[in-house]
Amino acid sequence: VTPAATDALVARALDGDRAALARVVSIVEQGGEPARAASAEYHRRAGHAWIVGITGAPGAGKSTLTDRLVAELLARDSTDSGTRVGVLAVDPTSPFTGGAILGDRVRMQEHATDPRVFIRSMATRGHLGGLSASAPQAARLLDAAGYDWVVVETVGVGQVEVEIAGHADTTVVVVNPGWGDAVQANKAGLMEIADVFVVNKADRAGARDAVRELDAMLELSAQRAWRPPIVSTVATGGEGIVDLVAALESHRAHLTAVGEVAARRRSRAAEELTAVAVELVAQDALARCQGAAFDALVNAVAEGTTDPYAAARELLAGS
Amino acid sequence: VTPAATDALVARALDGDRAALARVVSIVEQGGEPARAASAEYHRRAGHAWIVGITGAPGAGKSTLTDRLVAELLARDSTDSGTRVGVLAVDPTSPFTGGAILGDRVRMQEHATDPRVFIRSMATRGHLGGLSASAPQAARLLDAAGYDWVVVETVGVGQVEVEIAGHADTTVVVVNPGWGDAVQANKAGLMEIADVFVVNKADRAGARDAVRELDAMLELSAQRAWRPPIVSTVATGGEGIVDLVAALESHRAHLTAVGEVAARRRSRAAEELTAVAVELVAQDALARCQGAAFDALVNAVAEGTTDPYAAARELLAGS
Repeated sequence: VTPAATDALVARALDGDRAALARVVSIVEQGGEPARAASAEYHRRAGHAWIVGITGAPGAGKSTLTDRLVAELLARDSTDSGTRVGVLAVDPTSPFTGGAILGDRVRMQEHATDPRVFIRSMATRGHLGGLSASAPQAARLLDAAGYDWVVVETVGVGQVEVEIAGHADTTVVVVNPGWGDAVQANKAGLMEIADVFVVNKADRAGARDAVRELDAMLELSAQRAWRPPIVSTVATGGEGIVDLVAALESHRAHLTAVGEVAARRRSRAAEELTAVAVELVAQDALARCQGAAFDALVNAVAEGTTDPYAAARELLAGS
Repeated sequence: VTPAATDALVARALDGDRAALARVVSIVEQGGEPARAASAEYHRRAGHAWIVGITGAPGAGKSTLTDRLVAELLARDSTDSGTRVGVLAVDPTSPFTGGAILGDRVRMQEHATDPRVFIRSMATRGHLGGLSASAPQAARLLDAAGYDWVVVETVGVGQVEVEIAGHADTTVVVVNPGWGDAVQANKAGLMEIADVFVVNKADRAGARDAVRELDAMLELSAQRAWRPPIVSTVATGGEGIVDLVAALESHRAHLTAVGEVAARRRSRAAEELTAVAVELVAQDALARCQGAAFDALVNAVAEGTTDPYAAARELLAGS
């Protein structure tokens, strides 16, 4: 893709061409120079969407919840202009095959033909900051393309997932009934990023206990101006989704009222800039991790004749 | 800590001084120049330990399993020299408070006074490759300090955790009975890194189904020379731990017989070198992400007058 072709593609994507938008998301995902060129085109048009991050342990029902949330956001729209919702499902990738597993996204195809909805899975790609940079960038792109809501759903409760969710305007943490799930959420650092809690599968035994545990943990947490509401849902049956949307709207109204939207976005810009800076230097370092000089250093490390730090310095000093 | 003091500390750690060892782990964990200096001292003495990675979803019972595994490894030892076991528990850190939650490690204090055991929690610290570099380095340090087994237990199934487990000689993936857990393990890329599967909490309903699901997924996977055994355990009661140790020994014997130990260690050296190289450049980039120039660029990004990529390039070009 030439720079001029990228510019034209981004222009079409921002103009409502969904196929073009899908291709630009791929460009953003792959990173490198084309992603940077695209970013320059769309970044200035962003800033209108409300970005909702959804995170929680694997199996908590985040995909189904996202599915229902999208339907409810669309259903509430009574304007002519039409609410549009973008979904980014950040899936873990096998470090060996490089393929995202999209099985549970198939269900969302009911929305896939709806022109008001744009759904995209993104793969995570290791620890080099690529994801931290690319998922928020893709959210920014959907924002610039005119989506009113962008839902970023992350699978897993690793650090990276927590960070992605932290880039949202409203972060939803999903737990299930059952001993320990709320405690695990606390351990994984989710308590501090949650703006809204969802106890999903609330028809199961222990749902009230889960709400109580979360409530107790919120009591023990540092008091903030916003106390995260706890919403009980049965996503498979659509129960509680109206309450979830109400909680999102309420959080949005709160942030707007206290003037914290700009502060959050500034802090997000700082994180984005940091992530991109690290990505740029990491890509440069990775480019050096191949070839004969690298192989020789690897052998020396494996045989114990040097240590990884000395070898890395030698590698980076080479030209 | 001066370089000379670090050298002396590492020498004492390698000589069996556990307090010194604990301090060197902290140095490795904190990274930077002192970690590099320490690495040069211990790296060449490593290469004798068998490193066992234990990973799986939060709440799967990995800590208890590790606890029991340590006890069993010690109990099997009938030599005078004495088997020594090191444990690195890699805990998620809240991105906001920076504190690892060590509550569930308290239980392991039964081993804490045992001179044959060294236990240490390590915090994860974001997406910048610091963890990927520091946990394997700490494992290498315990190896050099003469621990025969080093168990690296990671909480969570994020990409980083998968990578850490991938640095092991034998990687154990822990799942629980219950619909979907095995499927989630597959989604998270764990099928491909597992050398041994453990179905823990095997006294619960669905344990046989979980074994069957894993078995079916192994059938569908690419055939490898080693087919991961599936061990059922009830870690809280100590059941199946003998089988787990047998599975570890069997995998070790297999890798040794086919000559893959050296190949794995070489590939590990390549990953370590890459992680360290990225860490070095990332630290340099991070050092630039503060101060007036950075703040001005953040404001420009937040206001949409520039994009993160252009801003990052400007930041990195500055001196």
